[in-house]
Amino acid sequence: MRPSQPDSDLGDALTTVSKPRPALNGVDTPTLFATLDAVKASPELAKFQFRATNRWLSGTHNRSTIRGFFGAGQEDESRTEDFSYDADHPAVLVGNGNGPTPVEFLLHAVAACLTAGIANIAAARGVVLHEVSSTVEGDIDLLGILGLSDTVRNGYQGIRVNFRISADASEEDVRALVEQSRARSAVYDVLTSGVPVSIDVATG
Amino acid sequence: MRPSQPDSDLGDALTTVSKPRPALNGVDTPTLFATLDAVKASPELAKFQFRATNRWLSGTHNRSTIRGFFGAGQEDESRTEDFSYDADHPAVLVGNGNGPTPVEFLLHAVAACLTAGIANIAAARGVVLHEVSSTVEGDIDLLGILGLSDTVRNGYQGIRVNFRISADASEEDVRALVEQSRARSAVYDVLTSGVPVSIDVATG
Repeated sequence: MRPSQPDSDLGDALTTVSKPRPALNGVDTPTLFATLDAVKASPELAKFQFRATNRWLSGTHNRSTIRGFFGAGQEDESRTEDFSYDADHPAVLVGNGNGPTPVEFLLHAVAACLTAGIANIAAARGVVLHEVSSTVEGDIDLLGILGLSDTVRNGYQGIRVNFRISADASEEDVRALVEQSRARSAVYDVLTSGVPVSIDVATG
Repeated sequence: MRPSQPDSDLGDALTTVSKPRPALNGVDTPTLFATLDAVKASPELAKFQFRATNRWLSGTHNRSTIRGFFGAGQEDESRTEDFSYDADHPAVLVGNGNGPTPVEFLLHAVAACLTAGIANIAAARGVVLHEVSSTVEGDIDLLGILGLSDTVRNGYQGIRVNFRISADASEEDVRALVEQSRARSAVYDVLTSGVPVSIDVATG
């Protein structure tokens, strides 16, 4: 099939234009577009399953490991070591502070997802990035999880992401990068729209 | 005020029963209930703000740091060092695999939150835990984020959490621990019900 070339976008229709994009911002843009072509030709390659395993250590301290996943038609073997992350509650919440709280990892996840999207989309649009930094804040009223209110929700009441971006582009174009990243962000979608979560238990 | 004592629960009405619970499973149960009492007396202590900062490194590789938060009426100072986490896309998604994908951190977050809850609730109920381990799987069809479908969502289509729990309790009581943890989990709530996420951009 004819290779797609970037129009003004990654993550929308893969319109073919005349000028191929070189690698940019550390993004291998030609391979990115070749990957899009491959998935377009074989949509089943897009079915992925990600995984984590978690083990309780003591109190509210527990540890997850992340490594294998299925995608592009096969079990991934590119990761040669586990990624490992601790979570805990801080002292003020009667934990030992051996890691961030679980809800703080949600803030990392949304910043990371939006930022990766901005880098890919900038490369696809030929925009040179100098800096993409962000702060994320999440407000939560613990009256919910502490069981002290039936009207306060358990989770965050709102999350705010504030980006600072320096790029060789107009402010309008930079804002358009962020908007396109938001529009195609997996984590933003999950956080804003929710996802079914099933829980099973084996005992013994 | 009269100290609360655990009934069968943490995270529902703080019913007072006759028998105080000692520390258990690494959970300082007396302090946990004292904390609940303090928040019950001064509900504004329950207002927390968690934060993360993120910086783009190259391509889809970026790094978050997590440290400060506001809660219990003041800025927390218990954390003496930053927690730092990298995220990246794997090679098959044209990244360099310098960290898990952002969506994998969501799986860690939900396992960690449910597990911390199980530990606290077990302590409150006087249940000795021997093992709490879990695997989490998330199915995602990348036709969404790749912009190759207007009907496939960007995020996970479903997440499954499978616990294995060994405890000095009946299967029914173990399942009730998990159910109570689910019912008061901040991450489960955010993932299943969604949360407003606002995004702002400063350029230059």
